[in-house]
Amino acid sequence: MNNPIRLAVLGLGTVGTGVVNLLKDNLTELKRRSGKDIIITHVGTRRQRDDIDSQIKQNADLMSIVASDDVDIVIEVIGGTTVAKDVITHAIQHGKHVVTANKALLAEHGNDIFALAEQHHVHVAFEASVAGGIPIIKVMRESLAANKVDWLAGIINGTGNFILSEMRDKARPFADVLSEAQQLGYAEADPTFDVEGTDAAHKLALLASIAFGMPLAFEHVYCEGITKITNQDVMYAQELGYRIKHLGFAKRRTLNDGNTGIELRVHPTLIPEDTLLANVNGVKNAVLIDAHPLGQTLYYGDGAGAGATASAVMADVMDLVRVLSVADGGHHVPHLSYHPDHLNTPTLLPAEQMLTSYYLRLTTLDHPGVLATITQILSDADINIDAILQQPDHDHSHDTLLPNQQREPSANHTPNIVPVVILTQPITEKNMNDAITKMEALDIIKDKIVRIRLEELD
Amino acid sequence: MNNPIRLAVLGLGTVGTGVVNLLKDNLTELKRRSGKDIIITHVGTRRQRDDIDSQIKQNADLMSIVASDDVDIVIEVIGGTTVAKDVITHAIQHGKHVVTANKALLAEHGNDIFALAEQHHVHVAFEASVAGGIPIIKVMRESLAANKVDWLAGIINGTGNFILSEMRDKARPFADVLSEAQQLGYAEADPTFDVEGTDAAHKLALLASIAFGMPLAFEHVYCEGITKITNQDVMYAQELGYRIKHLGFAKRRTLNDGNTGIELRVHPTLIPEDTLLANVNGVKNAVLIDAHPLGQTLYYGDGAGAGATASAVMADVMDLVRVLSVADGGHHVPHLSYHPDHLNTPTLLPAEQMLTSYYLRLTTLDHPGVLATITQILSDADINIDAILQQPDHDHSHDTLLPNQQREPSANHTPNIVPVVILTQPITEKNMNDAITKMEALDIIKDKIVRIRLEELD
Repeated sequence: MNNPIRLAVLGLGTVGTGVVNLLKDNLTELKRRSGKDIIITHVGTRRQRDDIDSQIKQNADLMSIVASDDVDIVIEVIGGTTVAKDVITHAIQHGKHVVTANKALLAEHGNDIFALAEQHHVHVAFEASVAGGIPIIKVMRESLAANKVDWLAGIINGTGNFILSEMRDKARPFADVLSEAQQLGYAEADPTFDVEGTDAAHKLALLASIAFGMPLAFEHVYCEGITKITNQDVMYAQELGYRIKHLGFAKRRTLNDGNTGIELRVHPTLIPEDTLLANVNGVKNAVLIDAHPLGQTLYYGDGAGAGATASAVMADVMDLVRVLSVADGGHHVPHLSYHPDHLNTPTLLPAEQMLTSYYLRLTTLDHPGVLATITQILSDADINIDAILQQPDHDHSHDTLLPNQQREPSANHTPNIVPVVILTQPITEKNMNDAITKMEALDIIKDKIVRIRLEELD
Repeated sequence: MNNPIRLAVLGLGTVGTGVVNLLKDNLTELKRRSGKDIIITHVGTRRQRDDIDSQIKQNADLMSIVASDDVDIVIEVIGGTTVAKDVITHAIQHGKHVVTANKALLAEHGNDIFALAEQHHVHVAFEASVAGGIPIIKVMRESLAANKVDWLAGIINGTGNFILSEMRDKARPFADVLSEAQQLGYAEADPTFDVEGTDAAHKLALLASIAFGMPLAFEHVYCEGITKITNQDVMYAQELGYRIKHLGFAKRRTLNDGNTGIELRVHPTLIPEDTLLANVNGVKNAVLIDAHPLGQTLYYGDGAGAGATASAVMADVMDLVRVLSVADGGHHVPHLSYHPDHLNTPTLLPAEQMLTSYYLRLTTLDHPGVLATITQILSDADINIDAILQQPDHDHSHDTLLPNQQREPSANHTPNIVPVVILTQPITEKNMNDAITKMEALDIIKDKIVRIRLEELD
């Protein structure tokens, strides 16, 4: 039992280097806690690196590394869904435990990978794949194991949160902040995965399966990014007591027929400004979980970066050290929290059936009958109104208007164009779509209606 | 392996009843996740209860329950340090695993209890003992296992936080809010443990040992309650951009001689109002941990109550179900995160050597030389000043003064008495004590100097 635990680190980018450094910095802590020596025997890297301890073998042939006899745990931090998939598959087939930070791979191929792992009696650990250093996978799988999760809401893409935080704090436009995020290294050269919501959708798929005990269903996640958020909407939200955050949202709902429906959605969301989640700023991540009987708990920290991700990777390694220390491999926590034969797929609700409140911004003529017409259409679609805000336009792009026209009564003038902001109570997307189609057909509506979902988080 | 896991629940107060209800409500979830049937075979209660399933044996003789053959795990939710101690000892000696929510018992006798458990190859699990439903014990022991903790700061007494939140939000005096907290059932009839900080000190002792890998050292926790906090100080703090929270604070510091020193302290603390911790209100708890390489993470939720505590108790049970499912008892996570033979006691710093910033409120004569005299004393004690606030007194209890005197220049009048608020940079308690003694000896200082510690949490 006193043999060291031997790791292979595949990929020496930010995260891989973070893992190597963590083992150097905190070796004593790891030993004091695990009672074991933990060593890296191999690193997988295309370029030979001078900064790696000479006792660690460097090799570009990843397949041969994972098959090596002197490897107990394979740490995959290459990323992507091609080479990484082959390497992980190969590792599992060779009876190696795997630790990965690869949300895209797991969200898209996790069902197959976990099944293969079960078959080969190894574990694929993935704490680092969601919310970086925040231990949300273990918390949900183990600490909340006695709970029924009702919903969860997560700020799970740091780049998106940085952009929205800067837009609010400094009234900077989206494109401007995005290019800064790219310069700071928060956003990739191709920021699509971040700003279009795909990265958050990958992570939400993982969280939702663990929360609700269902196979991964990435393809069912409704996904909307932050590219259409304007400073105008950020400001109106603020005036109404809300902040716009890009959330991953998963909810279990009892339907009218008594069955359970699951909503999986990623989109910009107005949330009350006095909630902790609304105060998670910059590149930070946080996940808020509402469970029975626990109630609401929130988990906050760095969602990316070498140190935070390495911390999560090594937490998984420490769990596996315990598994490797018992003869029969231990009675491990199931990959998706529920035992594979107890996973089941509830009804995954299509977008049209999703239920949420809305922020609407209408560009209307400033005309006496306008509000009556709009509210009648909303009422016909069973949409209850929580608040209406009619104010001078913050967006000065409407330069066809003279400034002094904006606050004047409109009756005897050419009507002004004014924004009307409406907050609604929860309503299905279908009803909202119908109402918006009707409103946009009106002559008094002068531009496409902006809609952003709203969650009270209560 | 298909035998059910059999629980004995000792104590049917709020928490015990919560555990019984949780097992009823979420039986399916527990089975789907653990793959096991989990049943309560015994409850320990003085009064026979009609609301308990008839298949569960009720018994007032706790010692006979824990010795029963049909009990795998003993859940101790009696509280107190007498009967609970005997029962847990007896359970361990009979080879039973124990789950407890008893922070007082563990903080005061945990070293002995954990040693006895090691000796008998059983585990004493105690997630519910700190911060209620927040899974802070598991997070620190397992998820942060690869980290070196630098410091942690926790709002770990809900009653205290409720009182301070109400004092701030509604400018209500301490005594008034305390009596409401008692009516609401947040505070005990004897609120000493909450408002004097003992309860928080118990919890801090547990957190600190896990963070730093040292035996429990409750007797070394510096402890100050919230009974002396006034609305005046709450308001000044707010004007300066801070909120007063009652924190448990544990810090590892490198001393001038190169050795490591540990500070363990519980006291009211000014923290920046824009931190998440400052926005944890009402009875909620939260723990902020600064660790390397993870950085700062925060964990938030209900610190008490039937549901939250039962959730934590059952999370421990779920861990023990895995331990009970392997032949050799598994390779368990050590009670205090570090293996017992790797625990060591670093230098625990006495109060005089603790290093912190301060908020000082001086009641001074409004006299030209006053500030010069005070700042000279501070400077002589190596205390750097961060901010000074000199304003009309918020506290109208000084009714010997005429209202119109307060803002007048003082030169040619009987000098007014005005409060001067000073924020300092970090300084040892010894230096601060010396400076305060000198200042209080001055004729220009008209009342005892109020001091509250301040932490920037950065």
